[in-house]
Formats: sequence, C-alpha cells, structure tokens
Amino acid sequence: MQIDLNSDLGEGYGAWTLGDDAAMLDIVSSANVACGFHAGDPRGLLETLRQAAARGVAVGAHVSYPDRVGFGRRAMDATSDELTADVIYQIGALQGLARAAGTRVTYVKPHGALYNTIADDARQADAVIAGVLAADPALVLMGLAGAPVLERARAAGLRVVAEAFADRAYTAAGALVSRRQPGAVLHDPEIVAARMVRLATEGVIEAEDGSTLTLRVDSLCVHGDSPGAVAMAAAVRAALSDRGVTVAAFAP
Amino acid sequence: MQIDLNSDLGEGYGAWTLGDDAAMLDIVSSANVACGFHAGDPRGLLETLRQAAARGVAVGAHVSYPDRVGFGRRAMDATSDELTADVIYQIGALQGLARAAGTRVTYVKPHGALYNTIADDARQADAVIAGVLAADPALVLMGLAGAPVLERARAAGLRVVAEAFADRAYTAAGALVSRRQPGAVLHDPEIVAARMVRLATEGVIEAEDGSTLTLRVDSLCVHGDSPGAVAMAAAVRAALSDRGVTVAAFAP
Amino acid sequence: MQIDLNSDLGEGYGAWTLGDDAAMLDIVSSANVACGFHAGDPRGLLETLRQAAARGVAVGAHVSYPDRVGFGRRAMDATSDELTADVIYQIGALQGLARAAGTRVTYVKPHGALYNTIADDARQADAVIAGVLAADPALVLMGLAGAPVLERARAAGLRVVAEAFADRAYTAAGALVSRRQPGAVLHDPEIVAARMVRLATEGVIEAEDGSTLTLRVDSLCVHGDSPGAVAMAAAVRAALSDRGVTVAAFAP
Amino acid sequence: MQIDLNSDLGEGYGAWTLGDDAAMLDIVSSANVACGFHAGDPRGLLETLRQAAARGVAVGAHVSYPDRVGFGRRAMDATSDELTADVIYQIGALQGLARAAGTRVTYVKPHGALYNTIADDARQADAVIAGVLAADPALVLMGLAGAPVLERARAAGLRVVAEAFADRAYTAAGALVSRRQPGAVLHDPEIVAARMVRLATEGVIEAEDGSTLTLRVDSLCVHGDSPGAVAMAAAVRAALSDRGVTVAAFAP
Repeated sequence: MQIDLNSDLGEGYGAWTLGDDAAMLDIVSSANVACGFHAGDPRGLLETLRQAAARGVAVGAHVSYPDRVGFGRRAMDATSDELTADVIYQIGALQGLARAAGTRVTYVKPHGALYNTIADDARQADAVIAGVLAADPALVLMGLAGAPVLERARAAGLRVVAEAFADRAYTAAGALVSRRQPGAVLHDPEIVAARMVRLATEGVIEAEDGSTLTLRVDSLCVHGDSPGAVAMAAAVRAALSDRGVTVAAFAP
Repeated sequence: MQIDLNSDLGEGYGAWTLGDDAAMLDIVSSANVACGFHAGDPRGLLETLRQAAARGVAVGAHVSYPDRVGFGRRAMDATSDELTADVIYQIGALQGLARAAGTRVTYVKPHGALYNTIADDARQADAVIAGVLAADPALVLMGLAGAPVLERARAAGLRVVAEAFADRAYTAAGALVSRRQPGAVLHDPEIVAARMVRLATEGVIEAEDGSTLTLRVDSLCVHGDSPGAVAMAAAVRAALSDRGVTVAAFAP
Repeated sequence: MQIDLNSDLGEGYGAWTLGDDAAMLDIVSSANVACGFHAGDPRGLLETLRQAAARGVAVGAHVSYPDRVGFGRRAMDATSDELTADVIYQIGALQGLARAAGTRVTYVKPHGALYNTIADDARQADAVIAGVLAADPALVLMGLAGAPVLERARAAGLRVVAEAFADRAYTAAGALVSRRQPGAVLHDPEIVAARMVRLATEGVIEAEDGSTLTLRVDSLCVHGDSPGAVAMAAAVRAALSDRGVTVAAFAP
Repeated sequence: MQIDLNSDLGEGYGAWTLGDDAAMLDIVSSANVACGFHAGDPRGLLETLRQAAARGVAVGAHVSYPDRVGFGRRAMDATSDELTADVIYQIGALQGLARAAGTRVTYVKPHGALYNTIADDARQADAVIAGVLAADPALVLMGLAGAPVLERARAAGLRVVAEAFADRAYTAAGALVSRRQPGAVLHDPEIVAARMVRLATEGVIEAEDGSTLTLRVDSLCVHGDSPGAVAMAAAVRAALSDRGVTVAAFAP
C-alpha cells in the first residue's frame, strides 16, 4: 500500500517567511510550490526547489490568481484567456527554476480561491485545464476528491490525482465542512493520523455525523504553517509508516 | 551578407498597449519579448508570441529588474542571488508561453537599466550570466557591441551576439552618445538606413565627430514605439534588402 | 439649469498612457482620478491633478479593487475589512497628491468591477461606504442612477450623486443594456448629445425599446480613451451649452 | 531629561507578519509605520495605527522606494519627480488611515535603502524633502544623526530630528560601522541599554575603537523583528526609566 503526502511550500515572499519548508520537505513526498502569483519570489523559490531536489521530493506548480496581498484567497472573475495564460506563465516560471535546481515540475495544483472556484466552475476549470495542457500535457492535475473538475480534466486528456485534507472534517455527502462551521478543522494529531491511516488503508473516512464515507484518494494534504501543523504532519507520516503504508509521490 | 534586426516587443500590460507589435513583427527577424517584470502580462505576451511564431520571427527573453512602474529603466542594487533567480524565473515563464505559442526562446537580451548596468558592472553581469546558464546554456546572450559583459559571458561558456542601435549616435571611442547630449538620437530614416547599410556591409559607422569607427555587430536594434519609429525600422529593412543584405535571425 | 460632466482620468501607469487627460479636462467639470490600485502612478497622478487644479475641475477619488493587470475590471471577493481599508488608503493617497497640486478631493466614485459589484451587493457596498465615512464624511459618493447603493449610502449619512452614462443604451427598466448585447454602446456623437440634452433638461431618456424613461441624474459620464470619445464628450458639452444648460461640478 | 524611542512597525503584508507590533507599541514612543511601498497592506496598517492610537504612540510615515519584494532595501535610481510624488502619495495614504484610526501622522522617516541613499545623495534628498514639504510642511523629518540630509532639510524649512541606532556600533568618525564588518551589530541587551543611557544622559557614545564620540540625538531606534529584539528594546526602555530619563515622543 502506498499514498502521497503533499503540502504547500515556497510561500514566503522576499523578507517574509511562512511555514517551515525544510521541516516539511522531510515529511512529504510532494511539494506544491508557489509560483509568484500568491506567494514566492524567485530567489526563495529556487532555494525551496533545491531543498526539494536534495530530498527527492516531487514538485508541483501551485498556480494562483494574481493576488499577492490577498494570498490568492479571493475569488476573482478572470477571463478564460487571462486564466489560461496565467497558468502557462506560472508553470513555465517554476519549470525554469526547477531545472536550475536540478529537478522538474511533474504536476499542477491550483491554489486557494482558484482551487475552490474551479472545483465547480466549469468555465474557469476549462481555462485552467487548457493552460496545463498548453504548458505540458504530461503534467498531472491535482484536485479535491469528488470535485467535477477532475472528471473534466480527465476527459480533456490530463492525468488527474484526487486528494483529501488531513485536518478537515467532511460532510456525509463527501464535501469539506465549511471553515465557518465549528469543528471544520481538526486539531488533535492522533485523531487526524488515525483518520488518514484508515483512509489510506480502507478508503473510508468518518463524516461529521458519524457516518462512513468512501473516498478514493491518491494524496493527503498536510499543512506546515505552524509548529503544531508540522507536528501533525509528522504524526500522519509516522502513523502511515507504522501501518505499513509507503509514503511515495504519485509523479516522482 | 546577412544581419539580424531586433526590436523590443510585448511591452504592453493589461489594458495598456505600447508600440505596434504586429507591424514590427513584419520587419524584424528577432523579437525581444518582455517577461512580465518591466512589462508584459501573460495574456498579452502569449498573443505576441503567437504572432512571432506565425511569422517565423526568433524570440528572445527581454529580462528586467522587477520594476513595472519604472519600466525597468531605473538601476537597482539587487543582490546577485536575486538577479540570478529573477533571470531564471523570467526565462522560464517566457519559455512556457513560447512553447504554448508554438515557438521557443533562443536568446536573452537584458532590458533597460539592467542592460546598461551589466554592460560594465561585473558583479551584476556575472549574476545575469549565471541565470542564463542555469536556465539553458544553449541560450545566446545579446549585448552592446564592445561592452565587457560580452567577453565575460563568452568566457563563461555562453554564445554571445553584439548589437548596434540604429538610431543612436556613437562617440569616436565606440560608445553610445548619452541621451542627455544633443544629437544623441537620430531622427531621419534615410540617414539611419544609410548608416545601417554601411555598418552591415562594411562594418564601419561614422562617429559624432566624423571619424570612422569599426564595429563588429551581428544585430541591429530598431524601435517600434511610435508610427515614426515603425517607419524608420521599415526604411532600414528596405535599404538592407536593396543592397543585398539578407535580414535573418542569428538564432532562429 | 445645470449638470455635471464627469470622466475617468489619470489612468496611465508609468510609461503607459491611456486617454487624453488634458483634452478631457477642458470638457468636464469633474475628474474621477485613479488612485493607483487599477491605474495611476504617483508622478502621473500629480500631473493630472495639477492640470485639474489649473482648470478648476473638481476631483473625485476613483477607488478600485487592487488589480492593476486587470484594470480593476474583475469582480473580487474581498473581505469587508480589506475593502474598507483599501478605500481609506486610496482616498488618503489621492488627498495627499491633490493638496500638493493645490486642489482637494470632494467626492468618491468606485471604479469598474467595484462600481458594478456594490451597485447591488450590500456587503461590499457597506464596506465601501464605511471607508468613505472613515476617510471623510463630507465626501460625496457617486453611483449609478437607480442603484440600491445610493440609498444605502444616504441612509448611512453620505451625500450621494447619481450619474448616467452618455454613450450607453438603457433598458425600459432603467438599467444599462449589457455590453454583450448589440446596441449597448452608442457611437453617434449627435445622437448621444441629443439624448444628454433631453436628459438634462427634461429628466427623461429613451430606452432601447423606444419607451420613455424618467431618470433623475446629477452628472453625466463621458469617456476620453480615444480621439472619437473625446470628440463625443465635446459634442455633449457643446449641445448642453447651446441649450442653456450650465456644466458645473456638484462638489467644486 | 527625555528622549524618544522609535521602531519600524506595520511591516507585515497580507498573510505575512513581521515583528510583534503590539509588544513594541508598549515600549516605544514613536512608531515608524510602513506605507505600502516596502511593506504594509491597508487592512494591516489600519490595525497597527489603531493600536498606536490606543496607546498614544506618535505615528511617522515610513516612506520607501516602491520595492516590496526587496523590502525597500535596494538602492534605486529613481528620478526626482518620481521620488517626490511617491513620498506625497505614501504620506497621504498613511494620513488617511491614521485619521480613520483616530490619530495622525506627525513625522516622516525614510526607510531602508532610501534612508541610506538620501543621507548623502543631495539630489534624492532634495526630492524627498520636496515631497514632505508638499505633503505638509509641519511634518518633522527623522534622519541619521550627522547625516547631511538633516541640514539640507532644515535649510529647506523642515523641522528635523536626529536618531541613533541602539544596537549598532559607531566608527570614531560618527558613522555606523558597516553591517559587513564584524561587530557592526550589538547583541547584548545590557550593553546596549547602558550605551543608550549614556547617550541620552551625557550625549556621548563609545566608538568601536574605544574613543568617545559626542552625538546629539533626539531619538533612539530599537528593533522588534525577533523576540530577542523586543527584549532588547524593553531593556533599553527600562534602563532609561531607571536613570530618570523620560521616554516621550518628539512630535506627539
């Protein structure tokens, strides 16, 4: 049995840092690396990519709306042409830095508001898919397990990968519980680790109402933006290893 | 006999346009395309690159300091690490867009203040050269004929190309007359065209004091940021053709 | 009888220009001046404000979402706190430049997507209104005639001004015909001028279906982003004068 | 006896934080608040200004070159017109936010590379001075004790204030020891506090070669960008109080 662990990295900007990239690169198998539109300056990204290369961690382009001050978290009504070109530009920039760092970009994960918007918005989803295809049709697209965007991307010819969020509660219908609801985010590393082991080994996760949900995922998303988050990610990895689940990139 | 004609293109930004890219692409053999740091948004750059691809015009990455409001015209005391990573990022972004447009980046020409600074500043020159080498050692570096940066780049292993500016006066020592001096910029298309024909066919250009200057150049830079500039560029091309000089890219 | 003529100015950015500010300042009584978020760099804004001051044209802050590459034309799901602070920042910046230019900001007109969004979106409207009140409760808010935002702003204590768009067709219900519909934008200066004279003198405008619409407006918006647009604005002004309508700012 | 303690605050940006503004506002009498050009988004700045207002800490505009990715630390060859307008814009924006927060801007302190450049560069110094005068001639300009800019500003009609850096070593000539030299930055809170007490009470400071330097300063700059820095600032404040030196703003 094997599964991928992914995390958002390279999210500093110039003098500002965010999260502990080095610590997370010792835990995850895939790094979603910012491309400069929501975070990440070239010098800092190159450093993160070199660290990823040194550890053999796979690299994905974490593409975003152009919104640095909003950290890419605000939905934006961009035209399809803008989105497609923005995606190509970001992938290309990260590919360039990755080559210079001795590695390469193997997948794409939209970030923040773009991730959430294209989960359901067919127009923006198609614009992003067109951008990935134009950049390199061999790139894998990562998306939320169960989101329509994955089927659209597959139909368009992309290989897709579904992910679950380690620290998030799920509704009985398989959606993420909104962050505005109490209990949306889980904080106990042991509980989270146990949930992820079950998901990786049995393909099921307990929903917020106690019902059991079948979820087919290829990757688990863990966060590293606080010491507690790093500890939780490490707990998930350790629990998976203990149960014989190999943590490995889906696109090394 | 043959020579390259190059021009700065893709210098709009979002709703703002600058110059007539389509007209210039019918005249030049090489397009220095902005990479987003001094000008150029992804959607507009993709359109310019598609037009270049359709006409078989060679594409260079017109890399710059990160200074959109100053159009890359202000010298900046960037660290070497910043410069190297900025160059890699920009080349990569343009490579991505170029591939999507059905063409590829074959050379690099630093823009504006960065072009002028690295002509003489060894530290910043080395940082830019390191960026080009890290991005792709097969890329050609374009610089000012006679500038020390060309020798440094050649010594570092890059192929280099020297250019002259069609509408600029030269000192007897072979430098450009400063724009702050009267007569620094030439405005008569016939005079400019005749000078460029002589430079392309005989390798000499008349300096401001009337003396004759030997200048070895591979490319002539023409501008397209006004209707008059486009007309002058067309006059240069026509005069070269009339004298049997083929206009062709040095790195198709 | 008197009415205000307003236009969007200061919409260049660094090396990029847009429209003919000097020409429009000879025509309008109120200038909606960009504040740097969708357009306008400080040096250029200061120049436009000096020209407005020299002609006695009233100055409004043309506040926007922070989206330069999209020219503020893309709706953005900003939080209320972000919007309120962004509005205060932009008004303050323009007030500073206006003082330095010998004039002052007397009103606020949201730009582009922000203008359209707050016409109906109560949350974002309230955030903008809160920003204007926090900046200076004596500022007038300009909005689309008939839009709910004007009533909300009045209820919150702001003086409001309603505007019509000179070159746009109206539905029988009093809304602007969508730009995606044929006939949404009028191009004949004489027809536009006649419509504006009628609106200014009788308070009525003919809708796209030929019906007559009563519209209470204090200001007419004219554009200056092309030579044809400037000519149309001049035609509107001349027609108003011919019919004895004084063109004067609502907040000098 | 009294002296001012100042610190750079408001230096986060969107999702990124830097330093502990709340802790520092309990220590200092004057807050140099970023204006958005090197750091500071409107929402975050408004929050910092509200905290400064609540504690009665004086507010200065920490104006910068437009260089967010470089944190304003890179010298830039801006034109005088650009610099003057940039200064006015930033002061105006911060004045707007300050009014909304219930306080006001009483002084200006250039940041980073701009601070260092204008210390000696007369052209850029004059451009900044012109900007401050145009914004509000009652504003005080803060600069490095001994730097020529202070005399230029005084001659131009500005009130000026000289500062020393609490944690920096001084040459026998009264300049700061370059950060590239060993010993340039002092790390022992007790030593730093003792030096500042001596400077505040006797007007002398020991230079790196052991000689004694007479320095006339109105304010001491302390940093807050790490827990250790906050502790050092607190130690300086406590030592001053112990010796009967009142910490008070020069421009409340």
